[in-house]
Amino acid sequence: MSLLSPDAFVERLRAEGEARYHDKHPFHVRMHAGELSRAQIQAWVANRYYYQTRIPVKDALVLSKSDDPAFRRVWIRRIVDHDGEREGEGGLAQWERLAAGVGLDVFEVRCLSRVLPGVRFACDAYVQLVRERSLVEAVASSLTEFFSPDIMAKRIVAWETHYPWVDGETLAYFRARVSRARQDSREAIDYVVHHARSREEQERCVAALVTKTEILWALLDAVDRATAEP
Amino acid sequence: MSLLSPDAFVERLRAEGEARYHDKHPFHVRMHAGELSRAQIQAWVANRYYYQTRIPVKDALVLSKSDDPAFRRVWIRRIVDHDGEREGEGGLAQWERLAAGVGLDVFEVRCLSRVLPGVRFACDAYVQLVRERSLVEAVASSLTEFFSPDIMAKRIVAWETHYPWVDGETLAYFRARVSRARQDSREAIDYVVHHARSREEQERCVAALVTKTEILWALLDAVDRATAEP
Repeated sequence: MSLLSPDAFVERLRAEGEARYHDKHPFHVRMHAGELSRAQIQAWVANRYYYQTRIPVKDALVLSKSDDPAFRRVWIRRIVDHDGEREGEGGLAQWERLAAGVGLDVFEVRCLSRVLPGVRFACDAYVQLVRERSLVEAVASSLTEFFSPDIMAKRIVAWETHYPWVDGETLAYFRARVSRARQDSREAIDYVVHHARSREEQERCVAALVTKTEILWALLDAVDRATAEP
Repeated sequence: MSLLSPDAFVERLRAEGEARYHDKHPFHVRMHAGELSRAQIQAWVANRYYYQTRIPVKDALVLSKSDDPAFRRVWIRRIVDHDGEREGEGGLAQWERLAAGVGLDVFEVRCLSRVLPGVRFACDAYVQLVRERSLVEAVASSLTEFFSPDIMAKRIVAWETHYPWVDGETLAYFRARVSRARQDSREAIDYVVHHARSREEQERCVAALVTKTEILWALLDAVDRATAEP
């Protein structure tokens, strides 16, 4: 197998990621079409919260794999984005406000008592993937963000249209992610293109991204099955 | 074994750490007494650089072990302290300036070509300790900083007195560490005292700190043996 050109490699990542991205999951399709019940929206927010808590953990593992202060200075911003500079700031706090906005008890959400086993397995698998694989594969697994700005922009419109009972102020997480995910994914794709130096390494990066899409998919599977109406 | 009171536990940590702290190592004693040759100072700076490079890596592993954004917001500052906010800032860059100040080629230092096997083993053992042990033990292993403000203050005077050929401006790393280490170790000791909840856990924290002192000691052993005059 010969090395893919940067353009061909990016196209491979884009195509494999896009084909499996969780916006095609039936539960997600129904979410954006306004077909979810309040209980289903709540279950998704409470379960996806566990995924959100895993992001700074996996990003700290990514940091720990790099010997390059310049890379770490860029990547560390992702942790600050999620944890905030102060109590009440950052993506996790925004997600907690979203939880309140859909009518959940934030304390209960933080206790993770509503997190389904399948969701836990999938999210923990993401942390484990990052822990075990090489730095470039770990970075490649973050490339689902490549597709998230569009989905976030659509989600804001969909929720404002279909779920008027959700406090619109609490959609701040989705709003913030549109520009952040764009910048994060640009940095990550640059890194992956420059550091996957053999075809085998390129293929391992594609595989890491595919596994990541499977993780996001499995999360929705679990929420979908647990909240299916009889 | 019954739980030690906070005061007794802190005293245990202090006594065990102090008794083994590397300021008592013969090489270190000679450093502060002005008895090291230029080649020995250079070897210490080039080898200790590898230890410095491991600090942000182990601190990222500490971060990855915590589920608490409040803890991570405090601890992440250690990584920023070492990597800087921008190229040329932070403890690693300061150490590189120290390397230049003692007459080393900074590029060669960065390549780690002068790092002795024993130094590598010891520093890698520190990262591995943090990777494998619990969060509270990993934090406890950082408590050698408890003793470092005094040593740094003495080192600045000793170097300015005995090694006038070292550019005094390049001692900035030591100067910065006096106040940083004081704050860092206060935060760490608070964490350890509140989170070691059984006597067994307290003893594991003491053991982690002891291993850390052995790591710093082994680093000096390796440099001492490699640079001993015939």
